[in-house]
Amino acid sequence: MILKANGERLWNTLMEMAKIGPGERGGSRRLALTDEDIAGRNLFREWAADAGCTFRLDTMGNLFARREGKNSDAPAVVSGSHLDTQPSGGRFDGILGVLGALEVVRSLNDHDVETDSPVEIAVWTNEEGARFPPAMMGSGVFAGIFEQAEIYKHEDPDGITVEDELRRTKQLGEFPCKIFPIKAYYELHIEQGPVLEAEDTSIGVVTGGQGAYWTHITLQGQGSHAGTTPMNYRRDPIMGAARIISGMRDIVLKRPGAVGTVGRLETTPASINSIPGKVFFTVDNRHPDEEILANINQDLIKLVNSVCAEEGLENEFKNIWKAPTLNFHEECISKVRNAAESLGYSHRDIVSGAGHDACQVNRIAPTGMIFIPCENGLSHDEAENTTPEQVATGADVLLNAILASAGGAS
Amino acid sequence: MILKANGERLWNTLMEMAKIGPGERGGSRRLALTDEDIAGRNLFREWAADAGCTFRLDTMGNLFARREGKNSDAPAVVSGSHLDTQPSGGRFDGILGVLGALEVVRSLNDHDVETDSPVEIAVWTNEEGARFPPAMMGSGVFAGIFEQAEIYKHEDPDGITVEDELRRTKQLGEFPCKIFPIKAYYELHIEQGPVLEAEDTSIGVVTGGQGAYWTHITLQGQGSHAGTTPMNYRRDPIMGAARIISGMRDIVLKRPGAVGTVGRLETTPASINSIPGKVFFTVDNRHPDEEILANINQDLIKLVNSVCAEEGLENEFKNIWKAPTLNFHEECISKVRNAAESLGYSHRDIVSGAGHDACQVNRIAPTGMIFIPCENGLSHDEAENTTPEQVATGADVLLNAILASAGGAS
Repeated sequence: MILKANGERLWNTLMEMAKIGPGERGGSRRLALTDEDIAGRNLFREWAADAGCTFRLDTMGNLFARREGKNSDAPAVVSGSHLDTQPSGGRFDGILGVLGALEVVRSLNDHDVETDSPVEIAVWTNEEGARFPPAMMGSGVFAGIFEQAEIYKHEDPDGITVEDELRRTKQLGEFPCKIFPIKAYYELHIEQGPVLEAEDTSIGVVTGGQGAYWTHITLQGQGSHAGTTPMNYRRDPIMGAARIISGMRDIVLKRPGAVGTVGRLETTPASINSIPGKVFFTVDNRHPDEEILANINQDLIKLVNSVCAEEGLENEFKNIWKAPTLNFHEECISKVRNAAESLGYSHRDIVSGAGHDACQVNRIAPTGMIFIPCENGLSHDEAENTTPEQVATGADVLLNAILASAGGAS
Repeated sequence: MILKANGERLWNTLMEMAKIGPGERGGSRRLALTDEDIAGRNLFREWAADAGCTFRLDTMGNLFARREGKNSDAPAVVSGSHLDTQPSGGRFDGILGVLGALEVVRSLNDHDVETDSPVEIAVWTNEEGARFPPAMMGSGVFAGIFEQAEIYKHEDPDGITVEDELRRTKQLGEFPCKIFPIKAYYELHIEQGPVLEAEDTSIGVVTGGQGAYWTHITLQGQGSHAGTTPMNYRRDPIMGAARIISGMRDIVLKRPGAVGTVGRLETTPASINSIPGKVFFTVDNRHPDEEILANINQDLIKLVNSVCAEEGLENEFKNIWKAPTLNFHEECISKVRNAAESLGYSHRDIVSGAGHDACQVNRIAPTGMIFIPCENGLSHDEAENTTPEQVATGADVLLNAILASAGGAS
């Protein structure tokens, strides 16, 4: 049986939610555990209650809205994301995953479908990490990646702790924040990249997440006077950095699917008429395959050393963070792909370049993700956008993947 | 007649002066028109008075100490530099030029030489520009390059004006700050570059000063997520900047004697996991020949445009400052070269990469400069260093060049 969601209703629901904590340019500002975030959660609660859900709030403020199944003891099929946003956030990043799951529940109601397993909508606390680091906080504690006691102490820029705000906003629930039996977890999300839009494809079947190496590179040369130091006497770290940045791209381009970014670069001193003594820059390399990623890192180390030898520089090369690659669950991936296929929607396999709550949940439960295209690949900005048609397509796939996992709708 | 200066006395005089406004690492801190600067000037006044000099102070605080000649109406041979320093300045930059000229006067006294023309020691106000911009202030007003009334209003970071400080420190003299008849002007200075030391050469015969183009370059691409944006979808300005920086060096290396420096580079946003939307960087290009310098600039414009076309970037290219090239006076250059030759000191012609009071005076009077080597080419730092032997060699050349211009010592 193939069901369809109500795309127009979902779009209107998204637009209503976007009015809570409105941005200045059409987006939203609902930083985690602020009054705006809570107002958004309360609106969601109203809607989910109207759809017949019951609620559980855990000790990290993760909220679960449950639609009962035939077998209330069976592990639930869970679907969700987050309602908090970046400071100048968009209307879809996270919100689509929560309200898409709500639309699934509403559609099940419309079609009078009683699933075997219960279906639960998850609202994870503080996915963005924009107010309290780290990102994916609520789902991270849930998955046992972060220690709740330690996370409680994290402070926002004003020194207010996570625990303070959970208590003040009455989001510190009575249920322990930890795994409960989950049959499958699905998350619908905008791609946050340009691929689906550019290829005019409706659905991204997310097979996993890239691994990442974050690296700090410092090149030390000889600071000197820009006018009085002939070229052949220089040990100029910006010249080394330029060669390394170009060479890093060549290394990355040799591996299809890899990405490499230099996001930050600083010269010391930073003066127009001084050869800098020191240049610091960052590298972010990602690839879905652990071994290829490690090879990229090795090639980068070799490149840095050879350029420094030629330029007379010293270097410090620090891998400051390594995020492992991850693969979503084969069965969940298949159910997403089958749903798209059965619905006749164009689709392609895709790897997530960003982190999501699903990446955390994947550690402890069978997990899959669905991407829809977004305008110009843009996110984390008020201009973030997608279309009612794309939102509807995504909800249809989510609905049928959940149905396939929850069973009972034949 | 070849005379010799007393190098040991000059060295001791330099070391005495360095105690005024001592730095933390063996250098000096005498920012222009601070109490430390005035204490340094007063010590110089004592020494020059002991050597029989009379004084004139002009309305910019430029101080002239005069040793009378046979013909007191003849244009003076002037030699000097500055006593103010950078915040963490050295013991020689500027000071050597003033105290070297003092050593010339003392040596003339020792040898009972009466020159035809008077000899004057110049102490120019605020050469460094570290407290009050611009640099070469006193000599610049003297040479008619800056307007005194306008310069008087310039403020230090605390809002104190040049005029305030000239008055408070009693350095606002009665003589108008303007050109008087000058037969020749000589300035002894450390090279502030590595060439003489590396070539084991005692004396740099300075033939002129480089011209400079200062340029601000902004590259605009598309800021985006470092994880979700495949390489072939990127318009990444740091990749454009890396190619331009490497290419700028290639352009410069094609022209012997040219230098090119990228001293400052900034990415926006500056975040390890964001492709920057914008990169700003500075370029400082210099060459002693005006036309070649203009060609370098033209090549750079072409390079920026072609890289931007290939990388999908837009650019803004702004030449924010152009300093003309300058040639010192043929006769003064010859007198310096002849002095070095007659003394049997190794020497080479050299172009000044930095600005000096002599560059200003050169606009209005026959001017020459003498460089001596400094350790590792370092200056504007407390570690700035040279040796008693090099200082003595420089003073000998200065003495004989001045003698040649002042006449009467046959």
